[in-house]
Amino acid sequence: MSIQRIGPGPRMSKAVVHGNTVYLSGQVADKTKGGSVADQTREILDIIDGLLAQAGTDKSKILSVNIWLADIGAFAEMNSIWDAWVDTANPPARATVQSTLAAPDYKVEIACIVAK
Amino acid sequence: MSIQRIGPGPRMSKAVVHGNTVYLSGQVADKTKGGSVADQTREILDIIDGLLAQAGTDKSKILSVNIWLADIGAFAEMNSIWDAWVDTANPPARATVQSTLAAPDYKVEIACIVAK
Amino acid sequence: MSIQRIGPGPRMSKAVVHGNTVYLSGQVADKTKGGSVADQTREILDIIDGLLAQAGTDKSKILSVNIWLADIGAFAEMNSIWDAWVDTANPPARATVQSTLAAPDYKVEIACIVAK
Repeated sequence: MSIQRIGPGPRMSKAVVHGNTVYLSGQVADKTKGGSVADQTREILDIIDGLLAQAGTDKSKILSVNIWLADIGAFAEMNSIWDAWVDTANPPARATVQSTLAAPDYKVEIACIVAK
Repeated sequence: MSIQRIGPGPRMSKAVVHGNTVYLSGQVADKTKGGSVADQTREILDIIDGLLAQAGTDKSKILSVNIWLADIGAFAEMNSIWDAWVDTANPPARATVQSTLAAPDYKVEIACIVAK
Repeated sequence: MSIQRIGPGPRMSKAVVHGNTVYLSGQVADKTKGGSVADQTREILDIIDGLLAQAGTDKSKILSVNIWLADIGAFAEMNSIWDAWVDTANPPARATVQSTLAAPDYKVEIACIVAK
């Protein structure tokens, strides 16, 4: 089964496609770094849309999502953006937990596994 | 490859089946919310048995499990229930870490990837 | 699709192979337990190389990696070992977050999904 890497760097790829399954790296917000959870979530979901397009798929085919919040108190704020973005006809499996992230300015990180 | 959703809601599905791989959302205990780690673990594993049955599979085919404990000090208590439940002839890969969960009354969350 | 377990124990397997996808348990460092993040990361990546060999694959086919650091302040130290180990021609997707691990002497835990 073929393996294709999207946005490969010296440390990791932004996404890896294995046959018809796509694995995305944990995405964080760089433009809105330090901004609100809502802004960071919006930016991350936008980045994910872009990576899925590059992989030849889209959010209707997301299988499973991991969301890490630096402060779980922002659960409702993150969900307000998620709920407006998710394909409600095709909702993925999801788990959301609190974890301190790689830099204090990152408040949200999202990784997912997607069909194509 | 077909995608089938089990227990879809406006935010997420309880499980998503992609071909012969099943992705479960992070499951938490609602009946025993606020109860002991043992009780919550027992309820969650029961919920997982039910979702796997709906997906046409069972715990003998679990591939990989993520367990989050709000307090890693409950590792032994969670394992006492896990060890009695797991199919010892067919044990999955597993990772267990500490993360604060979506509500203070949730002490355990379990997600898994399962073959069918 | 066949399921093969590597290093099965009463609680979990070290790895589970499903068709051409391999799921590794979260690996921790036992020889260097209590040692530096660099030493623990080196030991864990060595363990992973061994498990991948047993599964009939290698690090060039890693699809997705989860890294948990007990203290995210060790991000650069962990990466110094990772960057020297990763197959830079074939970098995986990756997410790294902070989580307290099963024992205080464990500073790093790494799980991954790999093609074979």
